[in-house]
Order: sequence, then C-alpha cells, then structure tokens
Amino acid sequence: MKFIQKLVSFNSKKDDKFYNELKNIIGFKPKSLEYYQVAFTHRSAKKVDEKGNPINYERLEFLGDAMLGAVIASYLYKKVPSGNEGYLTQMRSKVVSREHLNELGKELDLLQFIESNVSSTKFGENVHGNIFEALIGAIYLDRGYKYCHKFISKRVIKPHVDIPKLEGKITSYKSLLIEWCQKQKKQFKFDVYEDTGNDKLKHFSVKLYVDDKLVSKGRATSKKKAEEIASKRAYYAFRKQMKK
Amino acid sequence: MKFIQKLVSFNSKKDDKFYNELKNIIGFKPKSLEYYQVAFTHRSAKKVDEKGNPINYERLEFLGDAMLGAVIASYLYKKVPSGNEGYLTQMRSKVVSREHLNELGKELDLLQFIESNVSSTKFGENVHGNIFEALIGAIYLDRGYKYCHKFISKRVIKPHVDIPKLEGKITSYKSLLIEWCQKQKKQFKFDVYEDTGNDKLKHFSVKLYVDDKLVSKGRATSKKKAEEIASKRAYYAFRKQMKK
Repeated sequence: MKFIQKLVSFNSKKDDKFYNELKNIIGFKPKSLEYYQVAFTHRSAKKVDEKGNPINYERLEFLGDAMLGAVIASYLYKKVPSGNEGYLTQMRSKVVSREHLNELGKELDLLQFIESNVSSTKFGENVHGNIFEALIGAIYLDRGYKYCHKFISKRVIKPHVDIPKLEGKITSYKSLLIEWCQKQKKQFKFDVYEDTGNDKLKHFSVKLYVDDKLVSKGRATSKKKAEEIASKRAYYAFRKQMKK
Repeated sequence: MKFIQKLVSFNSKKDDKFYNELKNIIGFKPKSLEYYQVAFTHRSAKKVDEKGNPINYERLEFLGDAMLGAVIASYLYKKVPSGNEGYLTQMRSKVVSREHLNELGKELDLLQFIESNVSSTKFGENVHGNIFEALIGAIYLDRGYKYCHKFISKRVIKPHVDIPKLEGKITSYKSLLIEWCQKQKKQFKFDVYEDTGNDKLKHFSVKLYVDDKLVSKGRATSKKKAEEIASKRAYYAFRKQMKK
C-alpha cells in the first residue's frame, strides 16, 4: 500500500502523537502508520488513491470483522469444549454484536483520531464499532493474525467476555453477591469514588467491603461497571472459600 | 486436547496411511493427527471424551468456517483495491457458498476418511463441505492461522477463485474463446482424453489447438472443467499477444 504514503497528509509532530497514543491503545508498536490512518479516515474526507479508489475505513471494517470473528471463534472453541456448533455461533454473535462493538470503540475513545469533513455529531452510534473493526483490520495488515489475536485478547476477551454472563446464567454479579450476603447474613458496602488518574475518560473506582473487610476492588468508566467488576471478583473469591 | 488420544482407536498402520494421505491433501506435515481424526468423525460414531462431551466434526466446522472467512476476506481485500465493503462481502459469499464448499470436499475425496455408523449414502450432499470446513478447523488447531492460509491458498484460491468469473463478467472462458476465434476467423479444436494417472478419482486432460497449433492444456475431474481451464489459459495467452 505504498500509494497511501503519498496521499496522507499527517505531519511528523502529529504522527508522533498519533504513534504514541495508538501504541497505548493497541498494546504494541505499530510498524506502518498508513494502515491505521486509513482506519480513522471517514468517507466524508473524500480521499482517493492514485487510481481513484476511495480511501476510508469501510473496506478495513470488512477485514476487521472477519478477523474478529475468527479470533472469537477460536477462543470460544477452546474455552467451552462442551458447547456445540449452535452454542458457539450464538455466543459469538453476542460478543460481536453491534452494541458491544460500539461500547468497545467508545471505551477506547477511537473517535478522537477520526479524520472527516462532517461534524462528529452526524456520525451516528455505529461509527464507534465501525472504527473498532477497521482498527482490527489495520492491525492485521500491519502485523498479521497473531497481533490481531493479542489485541482482541487484551481489549475484548479479557475485560469483556464472561461466559456465564453471556449465557444468561448470571445477569449481574452484583445481585448475585448481594443475594449471597443476605443468605450468609453478612453486611456489605460499596465504596465508590472518582478515579480518573491519567486517563482521558472519566473513571470510577470502587472498594467492596464485606463485614467491614475489604474483599475486592474494581475500576471502570462507570460506577455500575466498576461495581460489577468488584462483585465478580468477590464472588469468585468467595466461591473458592466455599469449596475449601 | 490430550483426552482424545485415549479415545481414538486408530492403530499405527492405519495411522501411517492416514498421515501420508492427509499430508498429500493439506500440502504439509500434520503435527497432531488427533485434530484431523476429529475432523473426520461423524456424530453417528457416538464418540465422547472423558467428560461426556461429544467428539465429532461439528464444532470444528464452526472454527473452520471462521478461518476460511478470514483468509478469503484478506485475499479479496488485497486483490481488489477498488472493491468496496459490499463488493467484498458479496464476492466472499460466492467463494464460501455451500455449493462451492461441497465441490471442494468432493474434489479432495474427503469422505474416504470418515468414521461413522451410518451408510455413506445417508449423509446428504452437505457432508463434503462440512468436512472441508472441519479440516480447516483442524489445521488451525494443529498448525495455526498461517497454515490455514497456506492450505486455503493451495486448495481454494489458486485453483478456484477467479475474480472476473465470480463477478459474472465472464461466465465461461470456453464460450469467450470460441467467440474470439470466430471473430478472428480461426479454427479451434478441443482434444479430450481420460488421464487419471495415479489419482483415485477419474481425471480428464484436454489439449486445445487453434489453427492446428497446440496453445494450451487443462486437466480436471470432468471434461467440462478441463476444457474451461485450457480455454482460460488460451484466453490469457491471446490477450497478451493482442496487447503487443
């Protein structure tokens, strides 16, 4: 894709900033920034290559969607040996739902990089998920399948893929924990505070106390999510104890 | 997948034969035969692992389908820079159509390896494509994405993915060639003969003469396919000449 180098008009200072922020998001060094620049180019920017082909993230979306599907398929196949074909298909569609992809794109604040000629209010909700997919496509072209796998593990699977929750067996770890505390006649307390730190987005931290003892912590972009994370951790810690 | 080793009941002589034939089909050495044995196990064989999970090719079909989708997406993305998202999606569905996958499975005679408790007449047409997908899934587990890519290039893309034909611009190279010969007032002749050689399946070879000069050859499992291959080669050879 040499032709793109001539066309994208990033200057080197802007490039440095883009490189560093991108590295933080993807979790490794990008080799060719060009691919990522395409992933953040909206069709309204009206870029074309030397043959007149449009340059924007839409083709990369197609590629990223395919890579995401493959990585999630491989994860579920290995993780759930008891799941048949229908189960695996259903679980995958929950992970790669438009809604979920939009959340992922928003969480990483990918819109900050977009190059377009329309106001960002005009994009609609799906732009977040679309750029998220395009970013995966760019990672594939830049570093290959293995790095797609790495990125998706870090940003999708580890923080968000929770099999019992996807199966609908557990709709909320917080309610599960509360139920358990009530049965066990234990007191619980969620201590929530703002903890944005160096992040651009507002973050919240929570400390979960059971019978006045700190049992777990959580941190996320919303209070609800942070509580859910802390509850899940506490739930698994208690389950371990209960088995002893 | 250690558990499978205990369960599959292949003896070593059978294993050797399986290993060698499999190697020919996939084009490289398999590392763990167990995965491939699952790819050829029909649900009617009623195998289970030590936890009672069924062992058959259905889960691998899901995995292979995802890998095939990713590899074809990557091929089309790079091959057709002018194709937009809709075009790429459409072209991919043509390549991975059930009908096409069944042809691929038949061509490789994958059914010869199947382990089942029903007569092979009861499988239905889709079994060929299903095992073909499962084989791709097994390759992924055994050797990773790169080898999936290798196998799909060798068995799907190189012999079968013909972009102008998929686009419907060219429905038959034979008719295109005939048309061209008539315009150019040239005589043509297809010389077809059976040429099975060492293959298990019947094969045909064809020599294509234009004005009594041999211009191209083709070989395939049907007369029609062999003629199509020879016509395509002749067509591209003449196109080159015409440009000079």
